[in-house]
Amino acid sequence: MDNHFTNAQRAEVLTTALPYIKKYSGKIVVVKYGGNAMVNEQLKQQVMEDITLLWLIGVKVVLVHGGGPEINDLMKKVGKVPQFVDGLRVTDKETVDIVQMVLAGKVNKDLVKLIQSKGGHAVGLSGIDGGILEAEVKNEALGYVGRITKVRTKPIEDLLENHYIPVISTVASDHSGNSYNINGDTAAAVIAGALGAERLIMMTDIAGILEDKDDPSTLIPRITVSEAKKLYDKGVISGGMIPKVDCCIEALDKGVGVVVIMDGRVPHSILMELLTEEDTGTMVMKG
Amino acid sequence: MDNHFTNAQRAEVLTTALPYIKKYSGKIVVVKYGGNAMVNEQLKQQVMEDITLLWLIGVKVVLVHGGGPEINDLMKKVGKVPQFVDGLRVTDKETVDIVQMVLAGKVNKDLVKLIQSKGGHAVGLSGIDGGILEAEVKNEALGYVGRITKVRTKPIEDLLENHYIPVISTVASDHSGNSYNINGDTAAAVIAGALGAERLIMMTDIAGILEDKDDPSTLIPRITVSEAKKLYDKGVISGGMIPKVDCCIEALDKGVGVVVIMDGRVPHSILMELLTEEDTGTMVMKG
Amino acid sequence: MDNHFTNAQRAEVLTTALPYIKKYSGKIVVVKYGGNAMVNEQLKQQVMEDITLLWLIGVKVVLVHGGGPEINDLMKKVGKVPQFVDGLRVTDKETVDIVQMVLAGKVNKDLVKLIQSKGGHAVGLSGIDGGILEAEVKNEALGYVGRITKVRTKPIEDLLENHYIPVISTVASDHSGNSYNINGDTAAAVIAGALGAERLIMMTDIAGILEDKDDPSTLIPRITVSEAKKLYDKGVISGGMIPKVDCCIEALDKGVGVVVIMDGRVPHSILMELLTEEDTGTMVMKG
Amino acid sequence: MDNHFTNAQRAEVLTTALPYIKKYSGKIVVVKYGGNAMVNEQLKQQVMEDITLLWLIGVKVVLVHGGGPEINDLMKKVGKVPQFVDGLRVTDKETVDIVQMVLAGKVNKDLVKLIQSKGGHAVGLSGIDGGILEAEVKNEALGYVGRITKVRTKPIEDLLENHYIPVISTVASDHSGNSYNINGDTAAAVIAGALGAERLIMMTDIAGILEDKDDPSTLIPRITVSEAKKLYDKGVISGGMIPKVDCCIEALDKGVGVVVIMDGRVPHSILMELLTEEDTGTMVMKG
Amino acid sequence: MDNHFTNAQRAEVLTTALPYIKKYSGKIVVVKYGGNAMVNEQLKQQVMEDITLLWLIGVKVVLVHGGGPEINDLMKKVGKVPQFVDGLRVTDKETVDIVQMVLAGKVNKDLVKLIQSKGGHAVGLSGIDGGILEAEVKNEALGYVGRITKVRTKPIEDLLENHYIPVISTVASDHSGNSYNINGDTAAAVIAGALGAERLIMMTDIAGILEDKDDPSTLIPRITVSEAKKLYDKGVISGGMIPKVDCCIEALDKGVGVVVIMDGRVPHSILMELLTEEDTGTMVMKG
Amino acid sequence: MDNHFTNAQRAEVLTTALPYIKKYSGKIVVVKYGGNAMVNEQLKQQVMEDITLLWLIGVKVVLVHGGGPEINDLMKKVGKVPQFVDGLRVTDKETVDIVQMVLAGKVNKDLVKLIQSKGGHAVGLSGIDGGILEAEVKNEALGYVGRITKVRTKPIEDLLENHYIPVISTVASDHSGNSYNINGDTAAAVIAGALGAERLIMMTDIAGILEDKDDPSTLIPRITVSEAKKLYDKGVISGGMIPKVDCCIEALDKGVGVVVIMDGRVPHSILMELLTEEDTGTMVMKG
Repeated sequence: MDNHFTNAQRAEVLTTALPYIKKYSGKIVVVKYGGNAMVNEQLKQQVMEDITLLWLIGVKVVLVHGGGPEINDLMKKVGKVPQFVDGLRVTDKETVDIVQMVLAGKVNKDLVKLIQSKGGHAVGLSGIDGGILEAEVKNEALGYVGRITKVRTKPIEDLLENHYIPVISTVASDHSGNSYNINGDTAAAVIAGALGAERLIMMTDIAGILEDKDDPSTLIPRITVSEAKKLYDKGVISGGMIPKVDCCIEALDKGVGVVVIMDGRVPHSILMELLTEEDTGTMVMKG
Repeated sequence: MDNHFTNAQRAEVLTTALPYIKKYSGKIVVVKYGGNAMVNEQLKQQVMEDITLLWLIGVKVVLVHGGGPEINDLMKKVGKVPQFVDGLRVTDKETVDIVQMVLAGKVNKDLVKLIQSKGGHAVGLSGIDGGILEAEVKNEALGYVGRITKVRTKPIEDLLENHYIPVISTVASDHSGNSYNINGDTAAAVIAGALGAERLIMMTDIAGILEDKDDPSTLIPRITVSEAKKLYDKGVISGGMIPKVDCCIEALDKGVGVVVIMDGRVPHSILMELLTEEDTGTMVMKG
Repeated sequence: MDNHFTNAQRAEVLTTALPYIKKYSGKIVVVKYGGNAMVNEQLKQQVMEDITLLWLIGVKVVLVHGGGPEINDLMKKVGKVPQFVDGLRVTDKETVDIVQMVLAGKVNKDLVKLIQSKGGHAVGLSGIDGGILEAEVKNEALGYVGRITKVRTKPIEDLLENHYIPVISTVASDHSGNSYNINGDTAAAVIAGALGAERLIMMTDIAGILEDKDDPSTLIPRITVSEAKKLYDKGVISGGMIPKVDCCIEALDKGVGVVVIMDGRVPHSILMELLTEEDTGTMVMKG
Repeated sequence: MDNHFTNAQRAEVLTTALPYIKKYSGKIVVVKYGGNAMVNEQLKQQVMEDITLLWLIGVKVVLVHGGGPEINDLMKKVGKVPQFVDGLRVTDKETVDIVQMVLAGKVNKDLVKLIQSKGGHAVGLSGIDGGILEAEVKNEALGYVGRITKVRTKPIEDLLENHYIPVISTVASDHSGNSYNINGDTAAAVIAGALGAERLIMMTDIAGILEDKDDPSTLIPRITVSEAKKLYDKGVISGGMIPKVDCCIEALDKGVGVVVIMDGRVPHSILMELLTEEDTGTMVMKG
Repeated sequence: MDNHFTNAQRAEVLTTALPYIKKYSGKIVVVKYGGNAMVNEQLKQQVMEDITLLWLIGVKVVLVHGGGPEINDLMKKVGKVPQFVDGLRVTDKETVDIVQMVLAGKVNKDLVKLIQSKGGHAVGLSGIDGGILEAEVKNEALGYVGRITKVRTKPIEDLLENHYIPVISTVASDHSGNSYNINGDTAAAVIAGALGAERLIMMTDIAGILEDKDDPSTLIPRITVSEAKKLYDKGVISGGMIPKVDCCIEALDKGVGVVVIMDGRVPHSILMELLTEEDTGTMVMKG
Repeated sequence: MDNHFTNAQRAEVLTTALPYIKKYSGKIVVVKYGGNAMVNEQLKQQVMEDITLLWLIGVKVVLVHGGGPEINDLMKKVGKVPQFVDGLRVTDKETVDIVQMVLAGKVNKDLVKLIQSKGGHAVGLSGIDGGILEAEVKNEALGYVGRITKVRTKPIEDLLENHYIPVISTVASDHSGNSYNINGDTAAAVIAGALGAERLIMMTDIAGILEDKDDPSTLIPRITVSEAKKLYDKGVISGGMIPKVDCCIEALDKGVGVVVIMDGRVPHSILMELLTEEDTGTMVMKG
């Protein structure tokens, strides 16, 4: 596959990664996995290779995932017609059961298998296990869409301690035994914050925050929270980007070092982001 | 609810449980959960109360479960028609996906929620996580029905060490990323053996091994492996009881102290079995 | 003995104990053992059963004891005539030797044997061992009656850590090698405070604090420190009850969660107090 | 007191102790304390100084004691007349209570106080605590004189681990709650063996094993087990020396490195034995 | 410097290293550093980069070094004329002092500084420290040239445990306080054996074992011990290669997994050997 | 050698050391070794005996050394002519290499060998190892004479934890790979401060601080920092004593308990200082 590189070239590449490996060794990096990188089979394989490589060189990677398209697939199969209120899915009891099954039973375990086939050691948990995520109803009209009320990172930290890659699906529960569908970006932000992660990587299907959203050359490589807030007012950050940047800001507030909005469509974007000089996407920092 | 007991009577009951608590304190007890106790809502609540109580008094309980009826429900909903060969379900790729979703995503997490609502701390894993169960095709004609080739108990032991109740769904994987449906009794026997469990409790819908299967008064309370083998020859153990007793024998061979075939239809049968003088069901022992 | 209960009833009782077991699991409970429960052979057996049961289900029980009647017995045997000043025993050198022998050598070891015969693991220490209790003369006229000047809980905590039930006799020493007789209630309060115990149980020969000391139906079930102080002024708390309530207040001041003045004459009163809904005696709380 | 030494002389003495300190650092040394060294006040002080010094320089000292004369004192005080069968004391229930009180309550705690006054940290246990010594009746005619049936060193090892000097009185118990008087030399041998002690020091009131028991100049400084057995036959080892040498042989059999029969009448004989070149008494070795 | 690679190419290289990183993660690799790679400034920098990279990705690297040319430099400066017997240097007292100073004081600390400048954490020890290497005179005529009599790896293991790179200079001592010059290959073999290293890399100035020593194209890539012994007889392994291969065989005998005779003149040869598919030099294996 | 003492006298001496052993057991004592005690062969032996004895009895000794005369010897041998500016040695690149070789390679390892021949376990490190001492140029005119900019005690603490005597040579490094010659007294003060040492002993060739520097009978046995500062003004502390007392004050500021300026010419002065009643030299204390 890469026989066009000489061993000397490979060695050269490896040694240039040295300062980056040093920087993240023993640190917690939370990856919010989603979008195109979850659908495209080749990208999926590459992300799991990247995750496994990072784990092998000593980074404590936590993978947080949703599972959009597969939920829709199963809903269709069982003949459920999705309903929406203000663009948000109405999640009745039957729907939340489907969400739980698909996220915790299908996507989660498939990711665990994929990482294991790359040589990594992974264990999949949902937000229900060990009470990782407790939630309550966010909006009566939406049903079992949850607002997180409590986060317990002990089960995740135990897995990191025992040298596993935790793979977390974003369903939560309450004390009455209800399950809730949780927004993936929010769950990743809250978990990363509670873990005091060094870095939170938000995989998306865009290049990052753009000055002109139609022109990729206007990518803003680094931005502080206060600068971001100004971009809200100027309308540069708008639409679906608003809740995503809100999550970044929440994660930084809760103690995450740096958040990166990363283009998940680029092959090996995680490795490039962490182990090479060139940043990808938009880095959001405190300040 | 039990206001017909005086406190003195309650104290008396508690103190008579003392020698039994002493016997199981710090010991591993694996419960194969299934049958009626999994369908009847009241029994389900009682089993989870029993599990939580045992955990609280220091028993290391591991719950292993399948999920029969719920698999059928989802198959029906998506319009799959079950096919059988020699009475065994043909499990094609789509079916094993359904099995994985229902067991690891639905039943497993619902049990975790139920235990947590009783005050226990539970974490749900599947046989896929951390490579707990590796399997291969058992019979080409049956598709993804697996024969266990390897068991790794480390993730389960880590949970016990961190004082969680491990809840394990019986799906497995291989190195190529395939999932397998695993017989619940076999999985429980293999896991109990690998953990060196003190006791394996097989919850069933029968009273135990009966001399005359139509007469509950002929229950055999205790039986050794060699005695059991004679009952095979005599036809006393027959039909569906054969693979179940085979699992008991395998578990004993692999190091489990005692296996109990227990009547899951009796309320609080687990507590009665472990914490009172009167045994229920049939106890299978080495020898 | 309790064959009048069905197993189902027993299971029902055990499960109703569940929330209480959960509450005290891993917590420190100090029991000041004394009075009638120390003299009546059947009560004695029951207290040791209760202690052992609590220990088995994960409560960290510490037993603190004096030994009134047995001290008098030995004094009589060696021909010592007790002398009193203002109702307090004059403790000369020979008397304190007798106290030390009876408490640390007789009562302490007999309790250790009794707990061990119930299946518990116990180790007996005196306040002298490891410098647990250091004392000085309280009142020259009384001789070797001690006022506690220092408490070291490390030897007790080591025993709890190694999963033993510490049984502590209330003698103390000073740096010159003198022994002191210490009031049992005071010692228990000071030790419970230093351990940060969840609960201190004072076994007595009364029903608790009574509005009218001649009418058991006037039992005050719960009382705060400030309410107790008012009862001093009103004369409701008087006589021998005053130093006892003083000890409760001291224990609460030093960090104990709750103190219970409990009727030791009631069989299994400790179990009932801790593991059932119905409280016995008077609970004294901060506030 | 030793102002007749210059500091340089003191330094010289300390440095010559260096190889001996090195030899015993971190090793277990069991001292059977008894005889004159337990009666003479000055010797008693010196033994406790020696024990404390050894503990300070890193030797793991375990002190095992009986308490002969003080038992007799209390028996006399309560008007008991000792009875003997074949020279052995008949120990009825009342007598064993006295033995337990004196050993575990008086002598044990007095030794703990004395060590603590020298700056050592000591905790006193009896053979009853934590089931250290279990026993049964040795000879019906003698009553509660015990033969050791089981030894548990965990409570002693816990104390050593927590850097205390364990002080052990030689009373034992059985499962029915009886106490037994145990021969001190036997108890020390059995405990030293179970601990795998480097050295067992038997303090006696003789110079050691003498060729001619009336001539101290005939001291045998070193002897192997097989040589000792020959001396039995020749009658050189006779009378009260026989059970003592039997204990030495038993200790060596059970894994003690070396046993020393030491003259406890010589001031600081323990220090001299362990920390100087000149051996005292008779060293008994395997072979 | 490597700006001729795209990030995607870099990521591709990194992911192909994944299986090799997995293989050596947590394993001990001993590198015998010497020859040209120790003289050429650029090679030296690259070796230290490689060592640091391996350490960062979780390999437990131990660097063992001699220091040939620098010893000669100092000898010349102080006016010592080297003397030889049968081609081996006569090492008088003054010479061994120079060896010790240069190896333990100059080369060792310079390597530690170099690794630290690359971001690694290194601690330099000599074979004298903690008694790592004990030696005796090998040949009277050669003076202080040592034969290793004992190896203690604890100080090295402590450093690995505390996540340092141990850098070991090959001087030894005896109990009389003499120092010895130890052959570097021998020391590396003995240390690697005692550590149970996964791999020992012998850096040399040759391509490996050659069928025809004048033709690099005849490199033997893999060889077993028994095959190597045949090459001795055939004269293929001869001259200075004999003691080197002897060391490889000794290391394998003592428990090292694989030994590699590696060409230290090739840039980044260590990285290429361990983290890429293409082997360099000659791998010597058991068999 | 000391056969003029009886064993009883030796025991007496040992027991009088008891309170001092108790005082320093488990405490860190840093010894700055230098001056005559480093040149005189008999004193050297005695210091290493003292260090080993202290280590054996549980004191955590750290030995910090320079190496004056041996540096001059090697400089002479290689034909370097020392140059001075204002009485301070000009340290060019070649000179600092010699300093590093002599201190880290010769003196350090010779001390390790000497301690090991006395039975101690020692490991020698330089300030370069593990980045213990980082430095920068102090004065351009002096070359590689360093001012300490950072101290890392972890490698020293690891050695103490693993029960070794750390022997530290006073060379430092910077991030560019330069070495620096560090003043021994300063290094000892900084290291002792960072370790929070109980006591720092400065071995010198004077009796201590004298009121009249020509009259040893005017020794000031104890002095506070504020008193010392007054003696600067009065000229009592002058010349070479000024930087030494400055170091004492710096050490006290950084957290050392007590500093002693000790006469290293007196045999066994360290033992006398620590383990006997009579202080030697001048004790400098906070205040």
